[in-house]
Amino acid sequence: MHAICLDATGIHYREDQPQPQLAEGEVLIDVIQAGICETDLQLAQGYMNFRGILGHEFIGIARSGSFEGQRVVGEINCNCRHCLRCQTGLGNHCANRTVVGILGHHGAFAEQVAIPQTNLHKVPDDITNDQAVLIEPLAAALEITTQVDLAHVQSVAILGDGRLAFLCALVLGRKIDRTVVIGKHPQKLERFQKLGLETQQLGELKREKSFELVVDCTGSVTGLPLALELVQPRGTVVMKTTVAEEHNLSLASIVIDEVSLLGSRCGPFDLAIEMLSAGCFDIEGLITHRFPLKKVEEAFCAAKDTSAFKVVFDLSLAATE
Amino acid sequence: MHAICLDATGIHYREDQPQPQLAEGEVLIDVIQAGICETDLQLAQGYMNFRGILGHEFIGIARSGSFEGQRVVGEINCNCRHCLRCQTGLGNHCANRTVVGILGHHGAFAEQVAIPQTNLHKVPDDITNDQAVLIEPLAAALEITTQVDLAHVQSVAILGDGRLAFLCALVLGRKIDRTVVIGKHPQKLERFQKLGLETQQLGELKREKSFELVVDCTGSVTGLPLALELVQPRGTVVMKTTVAEEHNLSLASIVIDEVSLLGSRCGPFDLAIEMLSAGCFDIEGLITHRFPLKKVEEAFCAAKDTSAFKVVFDLSLAATE
Repeated sequence: MHAICLDATGIHYREDQPQPQLAEGEVLIDVIQAGICETDLQLAQGYMNFRGILGHEFIGIARSGSFEGQRVVGEINCNCRHCLRCQTGLGNHCANRTVVGILGHHGAFAEQVAIPQTNLHKVPDDITNDQAVLIEPLAAALEITTQVDLAHVQSVAILGDGRLAFLCALVLGRKIDRTVVIGKHPQKLERFQKLGLETQQLGELKREKSFELVVDCTGSVTGLPLALELVQPRGTVVMKTTVAEEHNLSLASIVIDEVSLLGSRCGPFDLAIEMLSAGCFDIEGLITHRFPLKKVEEAFCAAKDTSAFKVVFDLSLAATE
Repeated sequence: MHAICLDATGIHYREDQPQPQLAEGEVLIDVIQAGICETDLQLAQGYMNFRGILGHEFIGIARSGSFEGQRVVGEINCNCRHCLRCQTGLGNHCANRTVVGILGHHGAFAEQVAIPQTNLHKVPDDITNDQAVLIEPLAAALEITTQVDLAHVQSVAILGDGRLAFLCALVLGRKIDRTVVIGKHPQKLERFQKLGLETQQLGELKREKSFELVVDCTGSVTGLPLALELVQPRGTVVMKTTVAEEHNLSLASIVIDEVSLLGSRCGPFDLAIEMLSAGCFDIEGLITHRFPLKKVEEAFCAAKDTSAFKVVFDLSLAATE
């Protein structure tokens, strides 16, 4: 089958990849669309030392199992289901897990991908493919609402003007009176202004400790020190993106200001699907670029480009070219 | 008066310091004892750029105000009482605050110190001077119990075998089934063993993510990376000590493991006094060295020595020499 593989020399389009081997409990999925995420760009640069087929945001059609013939999305952590963590609700943190397209498990930038049945969620008819391919990152944004009690939070700064920042802004903007998005790119910030959100150019930012909550979606080591300059004493910083590099910074203000720093990763698919189905989020029209698998270089270039929003591989394009 | 002053050339004993000038609402205190803390050692090395009389852990006798003639201890954050933070319960984080012996306010390594009346707590008769001088750091240890819901925490690692680690072990050991203290110094670890606590030598430590809670009391930049190696996914790391240096480390595991990192500083004096009075903590006998103010060099040397526990300046010694 056709697929995009990462090896020591970089990312490559391959026409001769074997079909996925199904492990026990896994289901074969025909991929419809798969999105490029910041993590994919980091993986391509060596983060996690991943080798194999990339891609963890997808919608496809199940070829077997209880959703056979139906559209599905899949959670990305493939857990052992036996260890103490799996049995105490920490399955996403199973020490024996593989992670689709990230850790020891081939991903969805391919014609087919193998996913455990227990990871799959049926996509309701009222959710389009273009919406469904965003369920994984939307769930990651919703994870914040399961970690932070937002009931008394009146101000949040979202650092970054990219894809995850946008989804976090959608999620938090509904709940928090003052949501300010801080970014570098005027063109990207316009997208947030259209949501009715306040935006600030990084260069013009007044660095005051005035936000109860700061969410770092920069994907850069510059995010955390900025967050610590903006968060109020006893406030919360959510770290939403991993970076391959080391941080080099003073953490004294975390202690002095008694800041809470929360790491936040994958989130609840069921909630994301339910809220999308209920029309809570307008995420139609966020896909700015569509490529067949073979145009991997153009696709990754587009995903790095500030004028792009979501870049997806569309497998129907692959078939017609 | 006699006092220990920090200037650009280091710490010095002075005999000719002027008596404290009382600002509005302040009370003059005759110092009985004042303890040397890790922060004092850091300040002496340039942390916070403090200049003036050092010392923030003390017991003394109030010379005026509502506790006139009585033994008192004092909270160290001197707040403006007018700003939004002060009026919303965040007085300890007032942006206009001075901090006794740390920031813009002369400290208690002196015959007398000026403290706001509102910061003072009367010391009950059943608390000795040797206990009372430890109320400030004991309150700091108790702060953890106000920040973390310990009801469901079954395992804690305390990193460090010094004074604050000991007080944290006293506080947490009563509440958490498995309390493990991890340190470098066999002699210091013996003190924890006498409390019935499990100890581990740093060199022999198995680095597994097996603790729900990790409290970093190392006072070193090596503490946080170790904490991240020991904390369970979705667990909590409490940062209890500030360090003057920058951290240089990967923080990716905070995101991947969804760890909560909590900065923790000053704590509730009233709770510390109440619990001491109720006999909850055996902290008698922790003072290993007593010096008059003039023996500042010996005192600071002793405070750095691994055989010492608490080193205090005893003003009665100063008077009789």
